[in-house]
Amino acid sequence: MSRRINLNADLGESFGIWEMGSDAELLTIVGAANIACGFHAGDPLVMRRTVRQALAAGVSLGAHPSFPDLQGFGRRPMQLPTAELEAMLIYQIGALSGLARAEGGRLTHVKPHGALNNMACQDAALASSVVAAIHSLDPALILLAPALSKLALAGEAAGLRVAAEIFADRAYGDDGNLMPRSQVGSVLHSADECVAHVRRMVDGGGIVTLGGQLIRTDFHSICVHGDGAEAVAAASAIHASLRASGVSLLPLPGVLREAADSDVSPSML
Amino acid sequence: MSRRINLNADLGESFGIWEMGSDAELLTIVGAANIACGFHAGDPLVMRRTVRQALAAGVSLGAHPSFPDLQGFGRRPMQLPTAELEAMLIYQIGALSGLARAEGGRLTHVKPHGALNNMACQDAALASSVVAAIHSLDPALILLAPALSKLALAGEAAGLRVAAEIFADRAYGDDGNLMPRSQVGSVLHSADECVAHVRRMVDGGGIVTLGGQLIRTDFHSICVHGDGAEAVAAASAIHASLRASGVSLLPLPGVLREAADSDVSPSML
Amino acid sequence: MSRRINLNADLGESFGIWEMGSDAELLTIVGAANIACGFHAGDPLVMRRTVRQALAAGVSLGAHPSFPDLQGFGRRPMQLPTAELEAMLIYQIGALSGLARAEGGRLTHVKPHGALNNMACQDAALASSVVAAIHSLDPALILLAPALSKLALAGEAAGLRVAAEIFADRAYGDDGNLMPRSQVGSVLHSADECVAHVRRMVDGGGIVTLGGQLIRTDFHSICVHGDGAEAVAAASAIHASLRASGVSLLPLPGVLREAADSDVSPSML
Amino acid sequence: MSRRINLNADLGESFGIWEMGSDAELLTIVGAANIACGFHAGDPLVMRRTVRQALAAGVSLGAHPSFPDLQGFGRRPMQLPTAELEAMLIYQIGALSGLARAEGGRLTHVKPHGALNNMACQDAALASSVVAAIHSLDPALILLAPALSKLALAGEAAGLRVAAEIFADRAYGDDGNLMPRSQVGSVLHSADECVAHVRRMVDGGGIVTLGGQLIRTDFHSICVHGDGAEAVAAASAIHASLRASGVSLLPLPGVLREAADSDVSPSML
Repeated sequence: MSRRINLNADLGESFGIWEMGSDAELLTIVGAANIACGFHAGDPLVMRRTVRQALAAGVSLGAHPSFPDLQGFGRRPMQLPTAELEAMLIYQIGALSGLARAEGGRLTHVKPHGALNNMACQDAALASSVVAAIHSLDPALILLAPALSKLALAGEAAGLRVAAEIFADRAYGDDGNLMPRSQVGSVLHSADECVAHVRRMVDGGGIVTLGGQLIRTDFHSICVHGDGAEAVAAASAIHASLRASGVSLLPLPGVLREAADSDVSPSML
Repeated sequence: MSRRINLNADLGESFGIWEMGSDAELLTIVGAANIACGFHAGDPLVMRRTVRQALAAGVSLGAHPSFPDLQGFGRRPMQLPTAELEAMLIYQIGALSGLARAEGGRLTHVKPHGALNNMACQDAALASSVVAAIHSLDPALILLAPALSKLALAGEAAGLRVAAEIFADRAYGDDGNLMPRSQVGSVLHSADECVAHVRRMVDGGGIVTLGGQLIRTDFHSICVHGDGAEAVAAASAIHASLRASGVSLLPLPGVLREAADSDVSPSML
Repeated sequence: MSRRINLNADLGESFGIWEMGSDAELLTIVGAANIACGFHAGDPLVMRRTVRQALAAGVSLGAHPSFPDLQGFGRRPMQLPTAELEAMLIYQIGALSGLARAEGGRLTHVKPHGALNNMACQDAALASSVVAAIHSLDPALILLAPALSKLALAGEAAGLRVAAEIFADRAYGDDGNLMPRSQVGSVLHSADECVAHVRRMVDGGGIVTLGGQLIRTDFHSICVHGDGAEAVAAASAIHASLRASGVSLLPLPGVLREAADSDVSPSML
Repeated sequence: MSRRINLNADLGESFGIWEMGSDAELLTIVGAANIACGFHAGDPLVMRRTVRQALAAGVSLGAHPSFPDLQGFGRRPMQLPTAELEAMLIYQIGALSGLARAEGGRLTHVKPHGALNNMACQDAALASSVVAAIHSLDPALILLAPALSKLALAGEAAGLRVAAEIFADRAYGDDGNLMPRSQVGSVLHSADECVAHVRRMVDGGGIVTLGGQLIRTDFHSICVHGDGAEAVAAASAIHASLRASGVSLLPLPGVLREAADSDVSPSML
């Protein structure tokens, strides 16, 4: 049986006059777009244009909400009251949802951005807030979260559909967590390294740590990046390698349906 | 046959630590709330709280989008490219719509705020942009616009349901437009004056100018204000006066359905 | 010999259309104004007006810079790279300094606001950043910092003039730190309580803890508040009580000169 | 006698993570930097870095204040109350001045940005506000303004030193005003065209219109741009051409002193 996988990338991270990223190229590679919602990047016009481009490319639309931190690109750790954070997340997802609707599309998923994502992966209470916000807005939205993270667990506990993701260009520590960017060797740069890393994880069926251990776990999506020619080349090479080995690359809802189907044991058919 | 009218007010105009308005009192008086969407006032938490309070009061929920101008409270005239303005409006309405959905409610209408509203009442091209934004997001949304304005006309031309509003505390010039606030006599302050002004217009079936002329025109809603004890007292007095004379005061969709029903001539029944 | 003390308060915390505080009354009570610089409150117009009023009242002008957090009123803990924080502080102090100069005045001091102040009182590295920013801009600026805090220590270590402050309406724990607002009894509300608390500290020559211990330490200024009638009444009562007992209430530079003078022992004269 | 001229360019227009412009290259070409102050571009860290680089290059430091419009890059026409605009300008110039001081430098000049500049060139009242703000902050600051503009006139009337500028890459209409960018032929693209345009104006001693007319007028500075390789090439070619013909290229104060000196006729010496 052929494996189905989604590739996702963060898109729409321009702001006003400032351009960022290689959205047009990435949209030929990925199946899911995580679109900035104006709090760390993106503005209403950039968001609408990105929605339109993603829809034209058949790429599924996701919200990429953030702490309110345009100047710090959502990378500053910040402490917000729970009620305030939840309202901010709904605001952002709702805003993108409106622009999607105006373009004839619908959001399929939500992936938190930057410091918010990092913190929610480690902090169960924060993870619950993120999940509560998504669930209150639309329980049919998929949560795209790092495999094995507290965020993914919180999503499952609340009954959200969760798509687990792995990272093509990041090394994992022995505990299955991403190694901090500050650590040597934590970020893979060349396309070859990224492809090899992804292949090991896809073929092994789990996360492969820097030490070479395999931690078995389901995942549905691979996060690639588009900031710089090297990153786009890596994304493109991963795409080509997976297709060459018969993996189906799909929009996000497609891989979750597959996951659900494969839960059905043959004897039940 | 009893007349049906809506009272509307701008609500949710606090921001962060700064409180504004008498929302709790107004929600016992009006049938429609125009809720700030974060661009001139309101923040996600204020928006969510206001949605919750309005739903609890049975008041219909409307978006009150603005130019991006928190410091100027949306009162600074500003020129924006059409595409940018439309995206901003969808962003704001979508954000509030998300918060409404998270609270189990739905938006019924949109009323532009401040300088945007003033300019769209005079400028047909700007009015068309506002209308296009609303229509692209949800053609079922009601446009709440000043009676006789270019904004109201643009809404009707585009097939939106339009609720025409009059102002309880503002004097009209001979052309049926609001007199600028800078002009002496343009703003009515006492509850008695406001009640008398409203009564003349409701009983006359049109706008009554400062010079005493009646300009016949349909209207569905009366805008009242809640900034200060005097304004709340006026709103309350208008409410009492209309009810005492048998007028039904309803949420916004209720008065438009009434308008639609009364289009049906008796002979058709 | 009569004691000299300064009273300080945070002023200019309105923003745009939103008014806050009792600036006019406080300016008749305090000798030093800590003026918001636009990052947590204040806007250029509010800042200029506050500068003008403080100058007219003979109150010394201080900058009250903050994390960039208008919506959270600078109360959200936030982590910023050192270089970025220092540049932000210089930006804010420079902006207020420009407005002071345009009104014919000069800044005398800087007091960090909210979460930034709290964190810099506990974290020596952050305290050093704050001090470095002030020093690089103008080494003659006085740092107004809580008595015994790491911020005060960092200022002294860097050669800044430091004015130590105590709080009229806050209880101190056994370690000499302010008790968190969340704890019962940490905030004094009545004017009588505040006066008694201040008297004990002024008469004792140090901080008096909730448990009644006296921690001897020099201080030059007492922070009072102006949010609400009760707070203004307390500030006014403290002012009256100190004056009645012969304490001279002065602008901030006045009390530091006094401190310097009193270092000179009589035998040296 | 050799002619002295200044080249100026807008610098420091990055924001947060978003980079813009070729500041390092431009700083080897120009003698005056107009540095964004955070309202249309720039953030405190970018501003400080730009100040440091300009000081290292011996380039004079100017403030480039704007309407508050980060998303629109200060290009949106906006109407602000006079008092508010003046306070905003002082705020921005003061902030940059603080960062300059922290780096051991001083501001020499102010050049308004974008829509504010365009509007102040046409509107005498707005020009007066801009000039009043600069003058109140520091009457020694030079106003860098388009030759023949109402802004330049207002500066002279108020007693500011005014440096008149011409544009290397923009065509002038018959009235001596810049032709709007929307008009065909209004923007010169190639280095050769820009050099020829500048040469005609420097050699002729005035503005040369698209129709070929020479409007005699003094000017002290030539504005060049750095957005894109073509623009930097043009700036570099202009620099080379002027130097080759014996023109001295100086920081801004240098050309104004020259202008003052050359007012003194030889016979007077």
